[in-house]
Amino acid sequence: MLVVGSVALDSVETPFGKVEEVLGGSGTYFSTSASFFTDVNLVAVVGEDFPEEHLSFLRSRNVDLGGLRKVPGQTFRWKGEYGYDLNDAHTLETHLNVFENFRPEIPVGWEKSKFVFLANIDPHLQLEVLDRIVEPEVVACDTMNFWIERERPALVELLKKVDILLINESEVRQLGGEANLVKAARIILDMGPKTLVVKRGEYGALMFSEHALFAAPAYPLEEVFDPTGAGDTFAGGFMGYLAATRNLSPENIRQAIIFGSVMASFTVERFSLERMKVLEYVEIKERFRKFKLLTEFQGLD
Amino acid sequence: MLVVGSVALDSVETPFGKVEEVLGGSGTYFSTSASFFTDVNLVAVVGEDFPEEHLSFLRSRNVDLGGLRKVPGQTFRWKGEYGYDLNDAHTLETHLNVFENFRPEIPVGWEKSKFVFLANIDPHLQLEVLDRIVEPEVVACDTMNFWIERERPALVELLKKVDILLINESEVRQLGGEANLVKAARIILDMGPKTLVVKRGEYGALMFSEHALFAAPAYPLEEVFDPTGAGDTFAGGFMGYLAATRNLSPENIRQAIIFGSVMASFTVERFSLERMKVLEYVEIKERFRKFKLLTEFQGLD
Repeated sequence: MLVVGSVALDSVETPFGKVEEVLGGSGTYFSTSASFFTDVNLVAVVGEDFPEEHLSFLRSRNVDLGGLRKVPGQTFRWKGEYGYDLNDAHTLETHLNVFENFRPEIPVGWEKSKFVFLANIDPHLQLEVLDRIVEPEVVACDTMNFWIERERPALVELLKKVDILLINESEVRQLGGEANLVKAARIILDMGPKTLVVKRGEYGALMFSEHALFAAPAYPLEEVFDPTGAGDTFAGGFMGYLAATRNLSPENIRQAIIFGSVMASFTVERFSLERMKVLEYVEIKERFRKFKLLTEFQGLD
Repeated sequence: MLVVGSVALDSVETPFGKVEEVLGGSGTYFSTSASFFTDVNLVAVVGEDFPEEHLSFLRSRNVDLGGLRKVPGQTFRWKGEYGYDLNDAHTLETHLNVFENFRPEIPVGWEKSKFVFLANIDPHLQLEVLDRIVEPEVVACDTMNFWIERERPALVELLKKVDILLINESEVRQLGGEANLVKAARIILDMGPKTLVVKRGEYGALMFSEHALFAAPAYPLEEVFDPTGAGDTFAGGFMGYLAATRNLSPENIRQAIIFGSVMASFTVERFSLERMKVLEYVEIKERFRKFKLLTEFQGLD
């Protein structure tokens, strides 16, 4: 599995605490989450100030850092806060730093990647990466309001080449230009992706495809410390499971969405990657079973 | 099944249209919805101006109006509007009219009701009704932010005598005095109810009990015209199914929540009770099956 995304140092404040310059970034959350299911090759950039311990952690998760360049300058930094409504992040500061001139480089051999995840970066760069990959089996991507507003033509071009789009609910409405979520989803499916996964934060996820509709709740948790990275962790579990099973049947995609939800439910329990650092696969399976209990009911005769 | 609630004339504006003085009220939506599953006895009040056609409609649904008093004065009127975010109703006008001095009267024989739903009215009146019922099997109630703020002691007294509480997500946090939904739910369960059903609008419902947790999505719809009455329609389907089956097993409660969600998903497709008026039981079963398809996934081996 190849992923291109950001590796960042985050400063986050929530009603439950505060952390400064901790490990973050879409590429980081995605890779760590996916690493519980499959091998991950990460393409990203950090500055010279990036702490070695974070690289060691990613390596300990078997994430191949052959595509992670360390360049002169400072690492991408994000500072945000959340109120009691943990669905809404308020960005206080964004310093792109070395990320501003990031040009992803694909190490030799990685162009044969079968599963590709293009995390939320400039769609021109997402296209550039994708053009380097020879016959991928599954390409998924994320994006955000900023790119939908500013770089729609490149994004539309990208969507023609993408199998699975994972975005937030409000972005579905924005991209589809339609207030009704179901109609907006149909419009987006007509733009290229065969599958659309709508991330709804504490309300879970909805999956749309031509013939199927699947709703997964988020796990109701007593301890939600920090929602940062939940979406990328979800994507990591989802894509990681698909890559591990190499099975794109509707049933397997549903299971992948649950694995994504499981991974996200762990990440939010602690700041940064703290929960991921101590997570064990047996816990993942246990929470998957809890999701089954959470949602199942008897059908009609 | 006995229900006490409001019967009203609503004026509603949504981005999709506008209606004036149409049939509404918690008692109306609940009764109509429950009537697809069981016999309903309605306790409520209307003014002399209340159109006879609405009474005919309720009778056509086999709702017993023996507890509906027509008194001098005007019927309760509510005027509200919704923006594209159909989760938020903006109340423009509330005229209690004859509802202001409503004192529910329980017709002879109805005091033996086994299933009782106390819709969202002053908790003193809810208590008064409940005191008249001899050995009910299941008592459920709704309430709202207004009563939680202004009449907390009466509400707390009521909750000691209630089996099932159905309220909105924000009201769970307010009543429990806790921002985390799961913790707030535990606090409320300690106040009396054995089961708490949290209504989350377009995100579905969550059910909490001492030993179980169940999440049901709302059905993703292409046409949502008017969310007015969705919560009471949900409650009607939920309680109606429980009363029809007289089975309070965890499995049956889950099915009841799905039937509630099914009924709510129909109501919002049209203004007022318009969808309910033409709804057939075969459609209810069909949508129940769609909920099953919407949520099911394979467990782990």
